[in-house]
Amino acid sequence: MQAAIISVGTELTTGQVVDTNAAWLAGELTQRGVQVVEHITVADDVERLANVIRRTLHESASKLMVVTGGLGPTKDDVTREAVAAAIGQPLEESTEALAQIEDFFLRLQRRMSAVDRVQAMIPRGATILPNRRGTAPGIGWIRDNGYLFALPGVPSEMKAMFVESVLPLLEGVTDKTRTLEARLHCFGIGEAKLGERLADLMNRGRNPLIGTTASGAVVTVRILATACDEAEAKSKLAADVAEVRRRLGSAVFGDAEDRLQEATARLLVRERKTVAVAESCTGGLLASSLTDVPGSSAYFLRGYVAYADQAKIDLLGVSEAMIASEGAVSEAVARAMAVGCRDASGADLALSITGIAGPSGGIPPEKPVGLVYIGLVDSTGVQVKRFLFGEHLSRDQVRDRSCKAALNLLRLRLLEGGAA
Amino acid sequence: MQAAIISVGTELTTGQVVDTNAAWLAGELTQRGVQVVEHITVADDVERLANVIRRTLHESASKLMVVTGGLGPTKDDVTREAVAAAIGQPLEESTEALAQIEDFFLRLQRRMSAVDRVQAMIPRGATILPNRRGTAPGIGWIRDNGYLFALPGVPSEMKAMFVESVLPLLEGVTDKTRTLEARLHCFGIGEAKLGERLADLMNRGRNPLIGTTASGAVVTVRILATACDEAEAKSKLAADVAEVRRRLGSAVFGDAEDRLQEATARLLVRERKTVAVAESCTGGLLASSLTDVPGSSAYFLRGYVAYADQAKIDLLGVSEAMIASEGAVSEAVARAMAVGCRDASGADLALSITGIAGPSGGIPPEKPVGLVYIGLVDSTGVQVKRFLFGEHLSRDQVRDRSCKAALNLLRLRLLEGGAA
Repeated sequence: MQAAIISVGTELTTGQVVDTNAAWLAGELTQRGVQVVEHITVADDVERLANVIRRTLHESASKLMVVTGGLGPTKDDVTREAVAAAIGQPLEESTEALAQIEDFFLRLQRRMSAVDRVQAMIPRGATILPNRRGTAPGIGWIRDNGYLFALPGVPSEMKAMFVESVLPLLEGVTDKTRTLEARLHCFGIGEAKLGERLADLMNRGRNPLIGTTASGAVVTVRILATACDEAEAKSKLAADVAEVRRRLGSAVFGDAEDRLQEATARLLVRERKTVAVAESCTGGLLASSLTDVPGSSAYFLRGYVAYADQAKIDLLGVSEAMIASEGAVSEAVARAMAVGCRDASGADLALSITGIAGPSGGIPPEKPVGLVYIGLVDSTGVQVKRFLFGEHLSRDQVRDRSCKAALNLLRLRLLEGGAA
Repeated sequence: MQAAIISVGTELTTGQVVDTNAAWLAGELTQRGVQVVEHITVADDVERLANVIRRTLHESASKLMVVTGGLGPTKDDVTREAVAAAIGQPLEESTEALAQIEDFFLRLQRRMSAVDRVQAMIPRGATILPNRRGTAPGIGWIRDNGYLFALPGVPSEMKAMFVESVLPLLEGVTDKTRTLEARLHCFGIGEAKLGERLADLMNRGRNPLIGTTASGAVVTVRILATACDEAEAKSKLAADVAEVRRRLGSAVFGDAEDRLQEATARLLVRERKTVAVAESCTGGLLASSLTDVPGSSAYFLRGYVAYADQAKIDLLGVSEAMIASEGAVSEAVARAMAVGCRDASGADLALSITGIAGPSGGIPPEKPVGLVYIGLVDSTGVQVKRFLFGEHLSRDQVRDRSCKAALNLLRLRLLEGGAA
C-alpha cells in the first residue's frame, strides 16, 4: 500500500515552523509496511489544498492520504472546506461532532464560543474521528478508491487520533512485513568509543541495521530489524538488543522513551530509597526531572533551590565563612549542600549541584563558565565530582548536562546497591 | 513570484529524518517576497522525482523550483537523472564540474574515488553551482518558463550554495518586494476568542496576512506584511502589530522568541522585585523556568520543592491539621504555602503551586487529575486561583500549564505594579 502525507499551514510554507508531524506519520506507516511516496505541504489556501487533495486522490498510486492541520476554529483553518470540495460533498453540521465538542468544553468547565461550533462541520457521509485531547474532531473518508484522513495539526492530538482512530480503520489493509525498531540510550560514554565496541554490528546492509546518534550527551543505539512477519522481526530484534546491552553494560540506562530520570526512578523504587536535592545553578531543573516521572512521590521528598548565597546558608546550613573563602561554586560548598540537604530532609540519598551556568559569571581560568560540582551523599559517605562542561555550551546546555550527570551519579550508586 | 520546494530522500519519506531544509529555504524566499506555495518530499526514486519536477514545472504558478538532496555520489542519489529527464536534456560530464570536484579533494588532501566522478554529470545546457563545502556541485536551469535549482541535501552545503549562487541569479526577479514577519505570543485567552477579536483582520488575501497558532496553551498571532520595499513592509507590519496589541491588551506577553519566563523576568527587573517559589506538583519546574533566563539571580532568591506533606510542614509552616482537613491540594494549602514561602525567603513576591499532575492520584469529582491551585502573595495580600486543566492532559502538560499559569499570574500582578 502506498500513502501520501499532506501538511497544511502557512506557518509551514513560510518556514516559520518545521513540520514534525509528517516525519512521525511516515515512521508509523513505514513500520507497518505502508510505502510513503510523497509528503506535500501547502499553505492555508482552500483552493490549492483542494487541488492537491484531488490530484493525490487521482494518482492511483496513493491509496492512503493523511492530512494534518487546518481543522481549528479560526478563519485560516481551511481543511474542512478543502476536503469537502475535493470529495465533492457538502459540509454539514454533525450533531455527533457537535456533541463531542460540547462535551470537551463541559469537561473543562469552559464556555464554548460560537466560533468553536464550526469545528462540527463535516463533509456529508464522512466518518468522525473523536478528539479526546482537543476540540476539533478528525475527518475520515473511506471509499473503494482509498482512504482519506484529516487530523489536527497539534502533534499530541494528531498522534492520539492516528493511533486510536486511524490505525483500527487500516487494520488488514496494511501488509505483514514488519520493520521493528529498538533504541538503547547510553550515558557517560562517547559516541566514538561506543562505535568501536559495536563496530562489527554496524555494517551497512546488515539486518538488523544498527546506528548511533548523540543528542544532549545521551548516545542512542538504534536497531532496525526487518522480517516477513512480526514474530521473526521481534526475535531478530531481541537478539541484537541483548548483544548490544552485553557489550555496553551499565552505560545503557534505558530504552524506548526512557530518559535518565525514568531509569533512576525505577532503581529508587526497586531499592526502596528516598532522595532529596539541593540545587544552585540548575535552579530546580534536577528536582523537576526527578518529579516528572509518574509516581515520583514514592521516592522524592523535597528539593531546595538554594540560588542566592543566603538561601544556601538558611536552608542547608552552609557556613557563610566557607562561601566567603571557597566561593559558592566549590567542592566544599557542594559537599556541605549535599550533607545539609540529607540532614534536613531525612532522605536516604541527597544530591547537590553548584556551578556556573553562564553566559556570564565565569572567572577563568580557575572558575570558567561550565564549571560544576555535583555532590552525592548516603549513609556510606559523601562523593563530590567536578565537571568542566566547556564554555562553548549555552546556559541551557550546562544546566541540562549538570542534571544528567547528577542523575547518572545517583543511578550508578543505586546500581552498586551502595546506598544503605 | 511563486515557488515550490522539493526535498529528496527516502530517509525523509520514511520519517527517519525531519526535513529542516525546506523550512529554511521557505523562510529565505518568503522574506524576499517569493510566495512558497508547496513543499514536496519524495523518496530516492528517479521516475517519481522526475514526474514531480515535470508536474511542478508545468503548474504555471511555480516560476521557481528548488530541489534539495540526491546529488551525492552513491546509487541512491537520483536527482541529476531526474532533473535531466524532467527538462529533457541528456546528462554529460562537465569538465568545469569535474575540475571543481578534483579541486575539492586536492584541498582536503584526500584521494578522489572513481565513484565521486559521477557528480560531474550535468544536464546539457545547465548552469553549474559551485560547492565550496562539499563535492557535489549544484545544478541551475534557467529558461523563460522559470528557474530550477538542484542543491545538495547537507544543510551547510545547501545554505551556502543558496546564498552564494542562487540568490545572485534571482536578483531582479525577486525584485525589492519584502515580506516581514512579526509574532505576538498570548496567554490566558483561547484561540477561538482571540480569533473573534481579530476576525476582520484575518481575512484571507488581506495584507498584512494575520493567522494564529496554539501550542502548549500559548496562542501566537503571526503577522506577515508584504510591500514593494522594506521600509513600506516595516510600517505596514508596525501598524498591524500596534493594532493587534491594542485589541489583545495584556493577553500579549511577548514577541519573537519570548516565553512567559522572559516576559516575567523583564518585569521583575524593571520593577526591581524579588521572587521565591514553593512548588508541589510542578516539582521544581517553576523555579527552573524562572532561573533559565540569564541574569535570574537579580530577582530569584530561592525555591522550595515541598513535594511530600512533611516538606510543606517543615519548610513552609503549613499546619498538619490543615493538610489533614483540607487536603494537600486545596486553596487553603496553596495560600499557606505562598505566605510561608514569602515569610521564610523575604522575597517581595512568592508563588505557590499545589495540584494533581496525574496520571493517578485524582479523586473525581471533587479533585480530578488536572486540578491545580496557584497562590500569589505580595505586600498587598494573597490571591489563590483554582485551575482545572482537564484529565485529557498528560502529567507533563499539567505541569507545564501550571507553571505558565503561575508565571502569568505573576506577570499580570507586576503589570498592575501591584507589588509593593
